[in-house]
Amino acid sequence: MSLAEFSLIERIAARTRARADVVLGIGDDAALLQPRAGEQLVVTADTLNSGVHFPAETPAYDIGWKTLAVNLSDLASMGARPSWCVLALSLPGADPAWVDAFADGFFALADAHDIVLIGGDTTRGPLSLSVTAMGQVAAGTALRRDGAQVGDDVWVSGTLGDAAVALRAWQGGTLDIRAAADDAQVETLRLRLARPTPRVALGRALVGLAHAAVDVSDGLLADLGHICERSGVAARLDLDRLPVSAAARARVGQTHAREAALRGGDDYELCFTAAATQRAAIEAVALRLALPLTRIGEVVAGQGVTTGSDTPGPQGYEHFTEL
Amino acid sequence: MSLAEFSLIERIAARTRARADVVLGIGDDAALLQPRAGEQLVVTADTLNSGVHFPAETPAYDIGWKTLAVNLSDLASMGARPSWCVLALSLPGADPAWVDAFADGFFALADAHDIVLIGGDTTRGPLSLSVTAMGQVAAGTALRRDGAQVGDDVWVSGTLGDAAVALRAWQGGTLDIRAAADDAQVETLRLRLARPTPRVALGRALVGLAHAAVDVSDGLLADLGHICERSGVAARLDLDRLPVSAAARARVGQTHAREAALRGGDDYELCFTAAATQRAAIEAVALRLALPLTRIGEVVAGQGVTTGSDTPGPQGYEHFTEL
Repeated sequence: MSLAEFSLIERIAARTRARADVVLGIGDDAALLQPRAGEQLVVTADTLNSGVHFPAETPAYDIGWKTLAVNLSDLASMGARPSWCVLALSLPGADPAWVDAFADGFFALADAHDIVLIGGDTTRGPLSLSVTAMGQVAAGTALRRDGAQVGDDVWVSGTLGDAAVALRAWQGGTLDIRAAADDAQVETLRLRLARPTPRVALGRALVGLAHAAVDVSDGLLADLGHICERSGVAARLDLDRLPVSAAARARVGQTHAREAALRGGDDYELCFTAAATQRAAIEAVALRLALPLTRIGEVVAGQGVTTGSDTPGPQGYEHFTEL
Repeated sequence: MSLAEFSLIERIAARTRARADVVLGIGDDAALLQPRAGEQLVVTADTLNSGVHFPAETPAYDIGWKTLAVNLSDLASMGARPSWCVLALSLPGADPAWVDAFADGFFALADAHDIVLIGGDTTRGPLSLSVTAMGQVAAGTALRRDGAQVGDDVWVSGTLGDAAVALRAWQGGTLDIRAAADDAQVETLRLRLARPTPRVALGRALVGLAHAAVDVSDGLLADLGHICERSGVAARLDLDRLPVSAAARARVGQTHAREAALRGGDDYELCFTAAATQRAAIEAVALRLALPLTRIGEVVAGQGVTTGSDTPGPQGYEHFTEL
């Protein structure tokens, strides 16, 4: 490790907050953590590469935010409380201003969710960011992909397709990802792509209510497909119920907005299934969190995800460089 | 995630073993793990980049081995039992044969230490490998850098400087890192660089015996320096006691071998301090593990690491591309 790398680590490490269960943080060969008695650990890891998982011109603040957000989203989909994280940062150069802006975005989200950085390293190379995030959940209560039951409602949070619509607009040169837009609807779309909101509070609220959950990172058809496959069931979607935003509709029209909602990735909403007897409780959660929760279909016997109209084409989201 | 990436993950995930405390392994949004009651978590993360942390021509098996070894070494230096790990793999192409050989090396070491892979991802990019490794240790018993006390002996395991000597030989074109050497001493040196042995059993045995420990990854002067800095003490080394291998001595002579032992990185031996009253117990550990443990100095009041002769120059190891 060169001195330049060392000072970059120090620069990031200095930004992390204390947490009572961190016995020993950054500075030794490893961190020492005190897990809660009676709880299970939830561990996830996601890597973001520049030019693959985000446009290379994305501002450092947004890269920092999104790096943590995609990992928090995985914790959310399990119903876990975020606890600790580790960051492996590969950087083409040692630019303190870039690192500071990155840290601003990363720790804005980290502090909001009381997750603390307990380790990591910095190496020189093409811009790449790997996070391992750890959370905790009472033993036996985690939301999983394999718990969906025939007769369940299928729900989704927020609106879907916004990130995909924003990505297409950026690709088409009609959306600048580098700065806030004057137009409020364009700015809404830009932030949905650049600075997604992990649904941590929703995941926590769904423990005991939902039978299965997944976060929508690869697209609704693909991710709901994962629930179906792991649960040994099928899902039937009502396309008319898919929640699309006014911003997406204004941008590309209802038909394309719905298509983006079905197949677009990177929204980081939660899709979950729950017994019909839980509808009132789930609507109460929506009110409490001020987050729309929409019933979009039902779990049936069989395999795969079908819609009322036609059979969906190829499922899943390809990162933009591969489109 | 493209289908090619997905099948690479599957290919690696299929190689991991079961462990009773893995409630839910690879295949959901996150893994679910059951930590042991009364224990603390030990978490470390290290990234290896091709051409920086290992020569680009290193065989895939050795890269897989070393990727895990450097992380197990950090767990060893804390006295932890290895439990779980996560792998973020960036690959320039989807070569199944390379991935299989990488997995052979990675899981040979993982299985030997009962550490299981519980998550990770594969992305396309320059070859880079990030591991987050988790272990467990009884609460309050971890070996740390900050526990050294004035009057302690300073110990080191195995021999030092072999990896640095091997690296210089490779740089000079007299050691082929790609294949086993006919000469037994050259092969010894090659394996010390390409396939280091994390001292996990030693770390476990030192719990309750050692006051402080660190693994020698940046070079003895630098790493013992970390112990001194964190403990608020100094260390005085007896250069004549530094354990160097016959292979290193045969290759570069006693003077250069000793210099490599002082400053060379990548050996992954443990350096630790312990009260003089523990000498017999530590020698018994050496016998039981068939691993030489050598007293190389003592902890004294003050700052920094000094040797009997002159004051050491700049401390620390630079990765070979920066030499």
